Amino acid sequence: MSGFRIALMQTRPVLGELEVNLSLMRELAAPHAADLFVYPELATTGYALTDFANARAQAEEPAGGSGLEFLQELAEEKSAAVIAGLPLHERGALFNASALLRPGMAPVFYRKLHLFYREKDLFTPGDRPPEVWEWRGLKLGMMICYDWVYPETARIMAHDGADLIVHPANLVLSHCQRAMVTRSLENGVFTATVNRIGEERYPGEDPLVFTGGSQVTTPRGELTVSLPVAETAVRVVEIDPAQARGKSLTTRNHLFADRRADIYGDPLPDRDG
Amino acid sequence: MSGFRIALMQTRPVLGELEVNLSLMRELAAPHAADLFVYPELATTGYALTDFANARAQAEEPAGGSGLEFLQELAEEKSAAVIAGLPLHERGALFNASALLRPGMAPVFYRKLHLFYREKDLFTPGDRPPEVWEWRGLKLGMMICYDWVYPETARIMAHDGADLIVHPANLVLSHCQRAMVTRSLENGVFTATVNRIGEERYPGEDPLVFTGGSQVTTPRGELTVSLPVAETAVRVVEIDPAQARGKSLTTRNHLFADRRADIYGDPLPDRDG
Repeated sequence: MSGFRIALMQTRPVLGELEVNLSLMRELAAPHAADLFVYPELATTGYALTDFANARAQAEEPAGGSGLEFLQELAEEKSAAVIAGLPLHERGALFNASALLRPGMAPVFYRKLHLFYREKDLFTPGDRPPEVWEWRGLKLGMMICYDWVYPETARIMAHDGADLIVHPANLVLSHCQRAMVTRSLENGVFTATVNRIGEERYPGEDPLVFTGGSQVTTPRGELTVSLPVAETAVRVVEIDPAQARGKSLTTRNHLFADRRADIYGDPLPDRDG
Repeated sequence: MSGFRIALMQTRPVLGELEVNLSLMRELAAPHAADLFVYPELATTGYALTDFANARAQAEEPAGGSGLEFLQELAEEKSAAVIAGLPLHERGALFNASALLRPGMAPVFYRKLHLFYREKDLFTPGDRPPEVWEWRGLKLGMMICYDWVYPETARIMAHDGADLIVHPANLVLSHCQRAMVTRSLENGVFTATVNRIGEERYPGEDPLVFTGGSQVTTPRGELTVSLPVAETAVRVVEIDPAQARGKSLTTRNHLFADRRADIYGDPLPDRDG
């Protein structure tokens, strides 16, 4: 199988500046070719949103919105899939979501299951499991930032057949990048963590310093690339999705067959049980 | 709360030499004081056992055996808990087990859930979840070596209240030590991985080189100590069990309360559900 190219788009969004951010996203993508372009969490709006009405005004609706239309155009233009974090307004609630856009296809979404800190003031936690979608023969799922702490998140997607877990993030702590190596190993999948850089501040609080270091990890626990911690950067990484499909650690050990569902259940008990 | 002292006993067992190994275990412990002495996986017998009758002859029975009696004496002598990996013969089967001995108390066991490579020829996989026991105010659970790959193992014990996950190992691959930092972080627990050193060989195969590097990780993802990769070594590490009890990553994030059991179930669905 030929390689699948992931473009890690490590940006510095400007808080509350939707149009500026969308332009920067396109500009940064312009010189690059890839099968998938990945942007950070809340890439269209910035992170430290606090006011519901204001956030809603910048949010996308599942059926569309200026950001989604823009990203769909970008997907068509680049003939590639695009994943970006954005606020999603749906059923009267705001979700910290990521959207997957593919040329000629309707957008699909993941809604963050585990909200971090003051995100809880604004967003509703996701109300359904992460799903797996296909693009150019590769199966991918999405999770967002703090979801990394919960091994169940990646587990569900890996058992649904994901080759790659795409992980838009706005990280401020230092442990995630190393932990994603473990998420790759324990599930036999690739992961692509795309973090932002720069600083933002909730009113009256210390600044949040986002830590970059976007990366791709392999099913064998290798870190293929690590972007700078404080610069806007793009890197295209080519992976071989077939490496995520063997699941054999030794000739006698298959990652999934060795799982003890008889003891601790299935990753999604309601569906699998 | 005063500190709880864990002695990491990184040994080099001699294959098939029960009496020699027990003597070495005591000798190595002699100069040290601790609340808990931890030895590697299959510390009493060595690792590359292949013949059932031979392994059974060196195995312990739940009600006793020369190794268990010895370890119980060691526990009384040191006025400490002792954990060691050993083969356990029970109900006609052999388990790759670890035993917890405490002064004045009956031994309790964990039977390895996930068997690695040729262990499958000899051992029966454990048939019950890991449990949590108490010693001097600290709650601990046990898992063995390759169990580290399965996040469910540590998860079950953490949710049963474990402060410390004790992890006897005979590691030959290189990823475990870093992954245990993730196990600590995601569960807010201490882990103590005690690995062996030296080489063994299954007949007709390349040698297995055990990689030492015994360590303790903290609920905050710190590595407190890392023993040499190729030497017998002892290190006593003092931990504060209270650090494993807050489970708060931020003022708004509680590791367990943020878990989405409504989506992916409880760590032990049959018991909790």
